[in-house]
Amino acid sequence: MSPAAPSHAMLKSKYLSGDSTAISEFLDRFDVFLFDCDGVLWSGDHVFEGVPETLNLLRAKGKKVVFVTNNSTKSRQDYVKKLSALGITAEIDDVFGSSYSSAVYISRILQRPAGKPKVFVLGEAGIETELRAENVPFVGGTDPALRREITPDDYRGLADGSLLDPEVGTVLVGLDFHINYLKLATAFQYLRTGALFLATNLDSTLPNHHSFFPGAGAISIPLIHMLGGVQPTSFGKPSQAMMDAIEGKFKLDRARTCMVGDRLNTDIQFGIEGRLGGTLAVLTGVNKKEDWEVEGNVIVPQYYVDKLSDLRHAL
Amino acid sequence: MSPAAPSHAMLKSKYLSGDSTAISEFLDRFDVFLFDCDGVLWSGDHVFEGVPETLNLLRAKGKKVVFVTNNSTKSRQDYVKKLSALGITAEIDDVFGSSYSSAVYISRILQRPAGKPKVFVLGEAGIETELRAENVPFVGGTDPALRREITPDDYRGLADGSLLDPEVGTVLVGLDFHINYLKLATAFQYLRTGALFLATNLDSTLPNHHSFFPGAGAISIPLIHMLGGVQPTSFGKPSQAMMDAIEGKFKLDRARTCMVGDRLNTDIQFGIEGRLGGTLAVLTGVNKKEDWEVEGNVIVPQYYVDKLSDLRHAL
Repeated sequence: MSPAAPSHAMLKSKYLSGDSTAISEFLDRFDVFLFDCDGVLWSGDHVFEGVPETLNLLRAKGKKVVFVTNNSTKSRQDYVKKLSALGITAEIDDVFGSSYSSAVYISRILQRPAGKPKVFVLGEAGIETELRAENVPFVGGTDPALRREITPDDYRGLADGSLLDPEVGTVLVGLDFHINYLKLATAFQYLRTGALFLATNLDSTLPNHHSFFPGAGAISIPLIHMLGGVQPTSFGKPSQAMMDAIEGKFKLDRARTCMVGDRLNTDIQFGIEGRLGGTLAVLTGVNKKEDWEVEGNVIVPQYYVDKLSDLRHAL
Repeated sequence: MSPAAPSHAMLKSKYLSGDSTAISEFLDRFDVFLFDCDGVLWSGDHVFEGVPETLNLLRAKGKKVVFVTNNSTKSRQDYVKKLSALGITAEIDDVFGSSYSSAVYISRILQRPAGKPKVFVLGEAGIETELRAENVPFVGGTDPALRREITPDDYRGLADGSLLDPEVGTVLVGLDFHINYLKLATAFQYLRTGALFLATNLDSTLPNHHSFFPGAGAISIPLIHMLGGVQPTSFGKPSQAMMDAIEGKFKLDRARTCMVGDRLNTDIQFGIEGRLGGTLAVLTGVNKKEDWEVEGNVIVPQYYVDKLSDLRHAL
């Protein structure tokens, strides 16, 4: 754990649902709310009751609302559309996703290997959109030429390098609903011959329909395993690379900012390690109260509610 | 490491190539040779020079030759065909594969959950052939209905269980060249609702064309990761479940048996932990001499040769 965490472990989490006074005091402490999406605002395509109204009320009280998502399959524009379809108003600049964060890092910070500016992508269109917006050249991704069985020619060409693009020097892995053996084998060949290893995020699962499905972490873990444990640089929560980027973009005061999420080891850890003024857990997603009350756990949200719309009582 | 290993760590590995006297003494110590295949006899579809002749000479000297492979994509019959195509004579009973080992375990030893006799297979036809031979009912595997994109109906049906077969109580994972998101999601749903978790083997990579490609371990690791670290029971080398099965089938004297392989952490470890009379490493595959000379390594082969056919000098 980071040095910041132990003191947090001493705290009890304060339950806000149904307590208007406590909610009012909570709201007064913050100017900015960073919202995780899946498990907080919705599950899959099902928006939770009262969420759009709660966000509108927060904004009406002058609060800044930012949507911070590890989901790499959608671009920021895709997110604006999804939010809108679920009744939540948002501008592209209200959204901060792991694809965007990765693309900005690659284009503005990463020293790509000389003569190898291209990125091989394991992932969906969201990553491609954000890379394109940052003028980062890429291959792979949604290319239909890779959505097929591996052939004897592929084995030969991947092994001897003739099928590899010599300009690829970086592999970026996100959630890929079209993952297959050929793509994994191709990514592995780039990595074992020296490409930089990046991941949009490392969530092992993705909530959907009140259940769990493979997340981006389930796509990168075979590569990590094949490489004997080499870890990618990752940009999703709880990576502080993402927090630094958010702070830089929104010029926020961390002490007056609250992270709202359902996962202890992504959202709440992200807020604690980022030394935000507060963290709020909602129980509509992955983790429950028992999870942070486990002996030895140091990732404890400062506040929690049963569901986000419980905040309406004091709004 | 097992209690047997430390004394082994004191040993230097004896180099046999070019030393006819040493090879003769080595051969006299054993009646049975267990051969790993990929990296020892061949790489992909390329048989190493002199291998068929070396095996013939061993047999001519009265040695029993057994092919022990972790490759789960082929049945024993498939292996006999492959061996034959590469000029190596073999009967089905000379082959011991991880698919066969898994199928025998499931049919004869495993207590499958009551009312749930079926196995969901992530893998290729080799597993199906061996399960069928043992009368184990299965779904998944090479079923073309699962070789497609995941749909919204799949998410719903997997999450609420309506798309799951209620008779499935076991998931068996091997190398699947047709791995996709739908299959991973399906296997995960069975596992998170209580199915037993088995793997044919855990090799992270598969040698081919003098390079490496994703192995069976790269197919099971996403599930292990999504389950928070739950490990499958596995049957390939170095699992001693496989050694016990081999001993039972061939009635071999372990003291007069030598394991021949290219991988320290599968083949050589398999032989050492199985307390065989000896282990022989060949340098035509994954590991090199430097790998077992690493400080702290205790998996040291008793003998090594540059290539298997170096044994011919004394045959």
